[in-house]
Amino acid sequence: MAAKGNAVIGQSGGPTSVINQSLVGVALEARKHGHIDRLLGARHGVRGIVNEDFIELNNASAELLERVALTPAAALGSTRDKPDADYCQRIFASFQKNNVRTFFYIGGNDSADTARIVNDLARQANYELRTFHIPKTIDNDLRVHDHTPGFGSAAKFVASAIMGDDFDNKSLPGVKVDTIMGRNAGFLTAASVLARHYENDGPHLIYVPEVDFDPDKFLGDVDRVYKKLNRCVIAVSEGIHDHNGTPMVVVLAEKLGRAVEKDSHGNVQLSGSGILGDFLSDLIKSHLKIKRVRSDTFGYLQRSFPGYVSQTDASEAREVGRQAVIASADENNNIGLSVIMKRISNQPYRIEYDLTDIRNVARETKHLDPQYIKGGNDISQAFIDYARPLVGQLPTVGAFTEMKK
Amino acid sequence: MAAKGNAVIGQSGGPTSVINQSLVGVALEARKHGHIDRLLGARHGVRGIVNEDFIELNNASAELLERVALTPAAALGSTRDKPDADYCQRIFASFQKNNVRTFFYIGGNDSADTARIVNDLARQANYELRTFHIPKTIDNDLRVHDHTPGFGSAAKFVASAIMGDDFDNKSLPGVKVDTIMGRNAGFLTAASVLARHYENDGPHLIYVPEVDFDPDKFLGDVDRVYKKLNRCVIAVSEGIHDHNGTPMVVVLAEKLGRAVEKDSHGNVQLSGSGILGDFLSDLIKSHLKIKRVRSDTFGYLQRSFPGYVSQTDASEAREVGRQAVIASADENNNIGLSVIMKRISNQPYRIEYDLTDIRNVARETKHLDPQYIKGGNDISQAFIDYARPLVGQLPTVGAFTEMKK
Repeated sequence: MAAKGNAVIGQSGGPTSVINQSLVGVALEARKHGHIDRLLGARHGVRGIVNEDFIELNNASAELLERVALTPAAALGSTRDKPDADYCQRIFASFQKNNVRTFFYIGGNDSADTARIVNDLARQANYELRTFHIPKTIDNDLRVHDHTPGFGSAAKFVASAIMGDDFDNKSLPGVKVDTIMGRNAGFLTAASVLARHYENDGPHLIYVPEVDFDPDKFLGDVDRVYKKLNRCVIAVSEGIHDHNGTPMVVVLAEKLGRAVEKDSHGNVQLSGSGILGDFLSDLIKSHLKIKRVRSDTFGYLQRSFPGYVSQTDASEAREVGRQAVIASADENNNIGLSVIMKRISNQPYRIEYDLTDIRNVARETKHLDPQYIKGGNDISQAFIDYARPLVGQLPTVGAFTEMKK
Repeated sequence: MAAKGNAVIGQSGGPTSVINQSLVGVALEARKHGHIDRLLGARHGVRGIVNEDFIELNNASAELLERVALTPAAALGSTRDKPDADYCQRIFASFQKNNVRTFFYIGGNDSADTARIVNDLARQANYELRTFHIPKTIDNDLRVHDHTPGFGSAAKFVASAIMGDDFDNKSLPGVKVDTIMGRNAGFLTAASVLARHYENDGPHLIYVPEVDFDPDKFLGDVDRVYKKLNRCVIAVSEGIHDHNGTPMVVVLAEKLGRAVEKDSHGNVQLSGSGILGDFLSDLIKSHLKIKRVRSDTFGYLQRSFPGYVSQTDASEAREVGRQAVIASADENNNIGLSVIMKRISNQPYRIEYDLTDIRNVARETKHLDPQYIKGGNDISQAFIDYARPLVGQLPTVGAFTEMKK
C-alpha cells in the first residue's frame, strides 16, 4: 500500500478536445482511494508546480467535473515550457514542500520526459514518489501506444470536415486544398481518408510528412485528377517538406517569390496561419490554369471543437486517467510509468490498458507505418482498418448517385 | 386548383448544411398533391434547366431522401451562373418543352431575381407557371425574411468554433484572429458573440463589414484587451473594408508591402484563402510586439460541416420547402413568391410561415441592424436575443473558475 500524501496533476502541450476527460478520470478515481489526500491541479502544467499555483480539485463537485470533462482544451491551463535540469529540481522541491507523493502528467513525449526526470530526482533523493504519464496528443505519435487519447476526436473532426467539404466541392466543382495539423507525423492528415463514402469521393490526394513532397509531382497529380473528375479535393499535412527536410512553406515561398516569416528560433510557424494552403493554391492556379482553386486551413478547430468528439476517444481518455490512479495505489509502481492502450482485436474493436516504462515513450516520436501509405499521395486500407474504430460515429449521408439509372 | 404538370426544383449559390432539407421538404410534400406529376431536379441549378439535365426525384425513396436531407451542400449540384435575359429565355423554353408548371428555386437574392424574371416571361406568354423562391443563405441577408435557412447552422458552427478556440486560448494564452465568412453582411461574424459563457470569455473583439475598419483603432483595441487579460480572441468578417469601401485585404497588402491576387474581374477572392487573418496577425506582431499571435480562417467548414446542424434550422429549412409546395397548389399564386418566416415571439421562440412577392427579396440584400452593433468592435444583447433561438443547443461546458475561492 502506497504511503498517504498529496498528488499533483498537470496538463501540458497542445490541448485536445478530450484532455479534460483524463483529468476528470483522475479526479473522480482519486476519491475512491486512501493514498491520495489532496489532489492539486497545477495551473499551466510545470509552471504551476514551481509557482505553487494549484487548484484544490477535492473541492470540485462531480457535477462540475462532468461538465469540465465535456469542455475542450486544458481546464487547468497548459504550457509549452520544456523544463531543463534546474527547472526539474524546482518541480521536485515543490513536491517535497507540498508532500506530493503522486504525480500525474497529461501530455505528449516531451511531458513524458519531464515526468521521467522528476521521478529520477525523487529516487536519487530516496523520496517516495510515483509518477504517471497520461498520454494525450492529436498527433498520435507516441511510441509503444497503439493510439493516443485526443487523436480519435481530432480525426473525427478532420474526416467530417473533409466529407462536408467534398460534398461542397461536388456541388460547386473546382480544386480545394485542405491543410491539416501534423508537423512530423501524418496520422491526422491520413484520417482524411475516412471521409470517402462513394466512388470518386475525396480526398483524391493525400500528402503526409512521411513522404518527401515534390511540387512538380503534386501538379501532375492534381492535373490528372482534375482532368478525370473536373474537381479535386486535396488533404495535406502542414508539415510536408522536400527531400532535404526543408518545409514546403519555405520552398514554395522561394518558388513563388514571396516572403515567409520565422520566429526568433528561425522556425517557420506552421499552425495558426493559412500560408501553406495559399501557396499551394497559387501554385495550382499559376501552373494548371484552373480557375476555381480554394484553400482552407483547419487550424485549431481540429483540436478544440466542442460537442463533436469521438465517444470512443472520450471514454478511453477518461479511462487512462482512472488507470493511472489505480496503478498509483501500488507503492512498487515507482519507476515512472506511462499508461498505454493495447489493441486486442479490431473487429470487434477491443483494447486493454497496461503500463510501460516512461522511458519507452519519452523524447522520440513515431511516424506513420509505411504500410499505411499508398504510393506517394494516398493512404491504404490498412490505415482505414486501424483508424476507423477510433473515430466512432461519422455523419450519415446520402446522394442521388445511389439511384439506379 | 392548379393545372397538372411537371415541376422543376433547383439549388443555387453557396451551399449550406441544410439546403437539402428544403429540397427534401419539397420532394416529400409534392407526393401528397395532385398538381405535380414529375418532380425534376435540375443538376447545377439553372444550368441543368437549360441543358435538360434532370434527376427524376419521384424515383427517390423516402429513405434516400431522409439521408440526403442530413447531407451538407447541394445534392442536385449548385451554380454561380447569373442568367441574363437570353439565359432566362432558355430557361423558359425548357419549361415549355417539359410542361413545367411549377418552379421551385432554392437560393439567395440573385436566385430570387432569376426566378422573378422567368416567372415574368411566363406571364407575358400567357403560360401558366407558379414560381417559388425558397430562401437559403448562411449570410442571412435576405430582405423581408426574419432569418434564412442555413444561417442557424452556420451560426452554431461559428459560435461553437469560437467557444472551443477561446478555451484553447485560455489554456495557452496569446492573440488569436478568427476570420469568418460574410462579404457584405456581418450576421455570421456577429454570431461569434454566442460563444461567450463566462466573464471575460472571447470573442473579445468583433469586427463586421457594417463598420468601417481602421487598422490603428484595431491595434489599440487589441492592445487594451491583451494588457487586461493577457490574451485576446478576435472574430472578424472576411468582408471588412476601410471608409472608402476598399477591402482590408487590399489595404493591408499595401501597408505590409505584400502582393495580393485578384481574379479576372478585379475582385479580391475573400473566401478560400487565409490571407486576411495572416495579414492581421502580421500587423499585430509587427506593431504590438506580442509573441504568440495566430490566425485561423473558418472557411468552407462554416457552410458544409456535416452532423452538427442547428435542429431549429434543419426543421425550418424542411418546412419552407413544404410550404412552397402547399402554396403551389393554388393557381392564383402565380406572381412569383418567396416563402418567408415571420417571428411571432422570442420567448418562447415562435415563427409563422408566409409568402411575399419575390420582388421584395430579389437583388438587394440587408445588413445588420445598427441596434445589433455595439461600439465599433462588439455586438449587442439585442442581437443575442435575436440569434440565440436560431442556433439551437450549444455545447455544455465547465471551468474551475466556477468554484468558490
